[in-house]
Amino acid sequence: MPVGLKELPVLHSVPGVRLGTAAAGIRKQDRRDLVVIECAPGTKTAAVFTKNRFCAAPVIVAREHLAKGAPGALLINTGFANAGTGAPGLEDARACCAALAQRLGCARHEILPFSTGVIGERLPVERVIAGFPACLANLSELGWADAAAGIMTTDTVPKGASRQFTFGGKTVTVTGIAKGAGMIRPDMATMLAFVATDAAVAQSALQAALVAAVNISFNRITVDGDTSTNDACVLLASGRAENPEILIPQGTGYEALAHAVAEVCTELAQAIVRDAEGATKFITIEVNGGASVADCLEVAYTIAHSPLVKTAFFASDPNWGRILAAIGRAPISNLDVNAVTVHLDDVCVVRRGALDPGYAEARGRAAMAKPEITMRVDLGAGAARARVWTSDLSHEYVRINAEYRS
Amino acid sequence: MPVGLKELPVLHSVPGVRLGTAAAGIRKQDRRDLVVIECAPGTKTAAVFTKNRFCAAPVIVAREHLAKGAPGALLINTGFANAGTGAPGLEDARACCAALAQRLGCARHEILPFSTGVIGERLPVERVIAGFPACLANLSELGWADAAAGIMTTDTVPKGASRQFTFGGKTVTVTGIAKGAGMIRPDMATMLAFVATDAAVAQSALQAALVAAVNISFNRITVDGDTSTNDACVLLASGRAENPEILIPQGTGYEALAHAVAEVCTELAQAIVRDAEGATKFITIEVNGGASVADCLEVAYTIAHSPLVKTAFFASDPNWGRILAAIGRAPISNLDVNAVTVHLDDVCVVRRGALDPGYAEARGRAAMAKPEITMRVDLGAGAARARVWTSDLSHEYVRINAEYRS
Repeated sequence: MPVGLKELPVLHSVPGVRLGTAAAGIRKQDRRDLVVIECAPGTKTAAVFTKNRFCAAPVIVAREHLAKGAPGALLINTGFANAGTGAPGLEDARACCAALAQRLGCARHEILPFSTGVIGERLPVERVIAGFPACLANLSELGWADAAAGIMTTDTVPKGASRQFTFGGKTVTVTGIAKGAGMIRPDMATMLAFVATDAAVAQSALQAALVAAVNISFNRITVDGDTSTNDACVLLASGRAENPEILIPQGTGYEALAHAVAEVCTELAQAIVRDAEGATKFITIEVNGGASVADCLEVAYTIAHSPLVKTAFFASDPNWGRILAAIGRAPISNLDVNAVTVHLDDVCVVRRGALDPGYAEARGRAAMAKPEITMRVDLGAGAARARVWTSDLSHEYVRINAEYRS
Repeated sequence: MPVGLKELPVLHSVPGVRLGTAAAGIRKQDRRDLVVIECAPGTKTAAVFTKNRFCAAPVIVAREHLAKGAPGALLINTGFANAGTGAPGLEDARACCAALAQRLGCARHEILPFSTGVIGERLPVERVIAGFPACLANLSELGWADAAAGIMTTDTVPKGASRQFTFGGKTVTVTGIAKGAGMIRPDMATMLAFVATDAAVAQSALQAALVAAVNISFNRITVDGDTSTNDACVLLASGRAENPEILIPQGTGYEALAHAVAEVCTELAQAIVRDAEGATKFITIEVNGGASVADCLEVAYTIAHSPLVKTAFFASDPNWGRILAAIGRAPISNLDVNAVTVHLDDVCVVRRGALDPGYAEARGRAAMAKPEITMRVDLGAGAARARVWTSDLSHEYVRINAEYRS
C-alpha cells in the first residue's frame, strides 16, 4: 500500500519517442516484462549508472555502447537482472542488443540494454528475443503508461511523472517513468528511470541537467545504501520541440529544462519511497544549519538509515532519544550538541540539545501518527541544508525481504 | 532466546574487588537495579567511553572524576540513562556520587557513575540514594553473578566471563560482567562492561590492555552504529595477586594479561550479540585478503549493517546477490570484484566475483539454517584481515523496537 500515491498522472507524449511493451514470459507468464523505447534519429542521450562495483552485465554493455555513439533504442527486461553472471552474462546482453538492432536496422551499439530482477541467473535470451515482434508492434508515442507497468518488479503501482514548459514560443515536454520499491533492495536492481524530452538541447547541457536532477532526487532517497548492481537513469532528448537549441548549462532555457527534469525525477524518486517495501510512512528529513551540504547529508543519512529511528516512525513513537543518538554518531567533524534543534512537523521536540521545555508527548505522538512526516534538524553551525526522503521499518519489510526467494 | 548462550559461567572472585547489588525501585519494583563495585585502595582504573557526541551525564561526570584520581567505587543504576537531561542531569549524577562518597568515607571524585535505561527523564536521585544501605550491606567478592543480573535492562540473560593465568608463580584472575542486548538500541545506553583483575600492573599497561581488548571485542559487535549515549567499559586492577608488577605494554606478563582481558571482553561482547534483540542467529563475518585492516572492517560492517543481508540470515536464505551488492558498495578505495570469494561456513558460494561453479543451493541453505554461521569474504587484495560479529534482523526486532515505549 503505497503512501499517498495516487493513480498514474497524465503522461504527455514526447514527440520522437515511442514505447512498446510486451509480455514475453521471461520469468513469469502473462506479465508485462519487456519494453522497447525507440528514439528518433538525432536524439541525444544522457545517463547515470550505479556506482556499485558489482555492476550488472547490461550496465557494462550500456556504458560501452553509449561511448560509441547515440542510441536508437533502449531495451528493458524484468525478471532477471543479468547480474553476477560473469562473461556469459555479457554475451547474453550483447546477443539481445544484436537481435534488436537487426530488427530495427541499426548497429548493435545503438541499443542500450537494461535488466532488473533476480541476480545470478542467466538471462533467457531466446525468450527476450521472441518478445520483440509483439513489443515493436505496439510502439507508440502513447505507450508511456504501459511501459511504466512493463518495467515493474516488486512495485505495487506504476510510477510516472510529466511536466511541460514553454521556451522560445514552443511547448517542451519532459516525461518519465521509474521502477523501484525503495532503494532498499539492492539485489533486485532496484531503480531504473527513463525520462525523455523533446527539447532541442546540446549533449553537455542535457547531461548537466540530468546529473543535477539525480543529485537532488534519486540520490536523496535511501534506506540501506546508495546503489544496486543495476541502477540506471537515462534522459533522452529528441529535439522535436523545435525550441531554440539549449547549448550550455546556463541561461533561461537551460534553467527551465533543468527545473522540469528535476521535478519529474523528484516525483519519480518520491514515488519509489512511497512504494517502498513495507512502508507505512513517507518521511522527509531536512537538515538545516550545517557547515556544509556534505555535513547535512551525513546527518540526514545517519538518521534515515537508523533501524531504531525507522521502527519508531513505524510505531508512531516520537522517540527523540533515538534521533539524538543518531545525530550524535553521524560522521561529521564538528557537532555542537548544544546547538541542535529537532522538529517533527511543527512540533519542537529538542531545542539546543535538550528536550524542549514546551514539548508535550501528545503533540509529538500526533505528528508521528501521520502518514507523511517532516523531520527538521537544525545543526546551528552554518547555512547549508539538505533533504532526503525515506520510509519506516515495518514488520512487512522483514516479511517481504525474508520471504522474497522462498 | 539468546543464541547458544549457556548459563553464567563460573566467575572467579577478584581479590580486592567487592560487589553489592540491590533492588532500589528506581524505575520498576522488585527488580535489581543498583550495583556498587568497591575497589581496594591502590586499585588502578582504565576506561573507555562512548564516542557519541550526545553522551550522557554520568559519562561526563565519570570522565571528570577519573581525571582527578583513582576511584574507590563504581556506582551503576539501571532504569534511567540520565541522558539528554542537560545541566540538571549532571547535578543528579554528582549528587548520587556525593552521597555514596559520604557513606564510603571518600571524596566525591572517587565515585564513577554509570547509568542505563530510558533517555530523557530525570534520575530519581532519592531512590538511588535510598538503595545504598541495602547495596553496601551485601558487598562481597562473591557478588559477581548478582551484579551481572543487577545491571541488566532488556537483556534476557546475565552476562559474565572469567579467566585465570599464572605469572611469576602467582595466579592472576580477570573477571567481567556486561549488559546490552545488542548494539542495536543506542538510545538505551546499550553497553556497559565492568572487568576487574587482581594483577599488579601499571596504569599505562592497564589502559593499553583494555584498549586493545575493546578494539577486537566490543568494537567488533555492531548492527546499526557504534556507540550509544552511555556506553562504557571499565577495567579495574587491584594488584592483590602480588605478581611481579607489569610495568609496560610488552613482555610476557603483559601479553598474558592482555590475552586474558581480550578473552573476557570477547566472550562478553559475543554474549551481547547472542542476546541481541530478536536475534535468531549468531553470525561471524571474517574479511580476509584486504589491503588494510580498515578496508576489511569497512567491508565487514557494510555487510553486517545491511538490512537485506540480515533479513536473508533470518530467512536462512543464501542470497549471495545481497552479499555481493553489500561488498560492492563498501566505501573502500580499491575493490577488484573479480577477486572476491565468499564462503558460508565451508560452502564456497562466490569464487572470484561470480557464482562458484560447484555451488549447490541446498548446501548454501543448509549452512544458513544453522544458528551460528561464519561468513568468510576474501578480497584478494592483500594480507590484512578483520572479524566482526552480528545478528540477524527478525520480526521480533521490529516488534521489540516498535513497541518499546508503548
